[in-house]
Amino acid sequence: MKITLTPIGRVVKGLPQDKNSSWNRWSEESVIEIDQQLAPALKGLEEYSHIFVIYWMHLAEYDSSRLITRPRGRGDLPEVGLLAFRGRNRPNPIGLSVCELIELKGNIITVRGLDAYVGTPVLDLKPYDYYDVVKRPKVPAWALKLWEEGVGRRPSWVGP
Amino acid sequence: MKITLTPIGRVVKGLPQDKNSSWNRWSEESVIEIDQQLAPALKGLEEYSHIFVIYWMHLAEYDSSRLITRPRGRGDLPEVGLLAFRGRNRPNPIGLSVCELIELKGNIITVRGLDAYVGTPVLDLKPYDYYDVVKRPKVPAWALKLWEEGVGRRPSWVGP
Repeated sequence: MKITLTPIGRVVKGLPQDKNSSWNRWSEESVIEIDQQLAPALKGLEEYSHIFVIYWMHLAEYDSSRLITRPRGRGDLPEVGLLAFRGRNRPNPIGLSVCELIELKGNIITVRGLDAYVGTPVLDLKPYDYYDVVKRPKVPAWALKLWEEGVGRRPSWVGP
Repeated sequence: MKITLTPIGRVVKGLPQDKNSSWNRWSEESVIEIDQQLAPALKGLEEYSHIFVIYWMHLAEYDSSRLITRPRGRGDLPEVGLLAFRGRNRPNPIGLSVCELIELKGNIITVRGLDAYVGTPVLDLKPYDYYDVVKRPKVPAWALKLWEEGVGRRPSWVGP
């Protein structure tokens, strides 16, 4: 069975492909351009504070002979399956980011928190609703470690 | 530009297609069968308490001439764009559910919270991580109303 999708827009400002960039998804804004004819489908989205952006990680390289690997290729992290972390080299390279919605203006959406390169095709947008909130999710020790490296502290509910 | 995907598995137990069913996604368990050859890719997923299930809403009927509609076809809810609520009749009918992970056994995953019919093709699974938690999301009044109808009370952070 094959499924075919057509992008509804693309990322026009966001993560640069230059690996030396100091771009930070949590502080810098990304901009998504939705196809002009779909602009009416965005009506009301601005009433949400957050949205899911679902995109196609077009630079991914899936290798079906390597289903287990270390997140980010880091030797200090354990081996896990491709579906057990958020890396891009997965069977279907669908990307998912929870984003703060900064502005919706016509077919142009400004967000914060998007982890997608400029030029990335966007497949869908969904409002982030109450039922998407998990108050105290449990994650593996290695994911907590990455969080602490990025944010500089533990989530309040994890404890010391 | 066209994008082609191949499902990685399917829902083998879940929402019945019978509309008279009293099935409740929040209390009843769903079961996903991932293709046997992808079982190694699940290694480590069980260390998470929650996962995103991304699926193909194969019964959706998208109508590009009706980009604005009322959620669930309910006359008491306002008109919003197809991308501003979680209905299935969207340009790319990708479904997204935050699920509690009950059990992972080989290539069989038992979850709670999945909003997908039996037989639904599954496209991707992603662990729910700390950065997916939005502590106090803002939603429109109509979405709060639906929440209250379903859960019977307001989220604690919304207030009386």
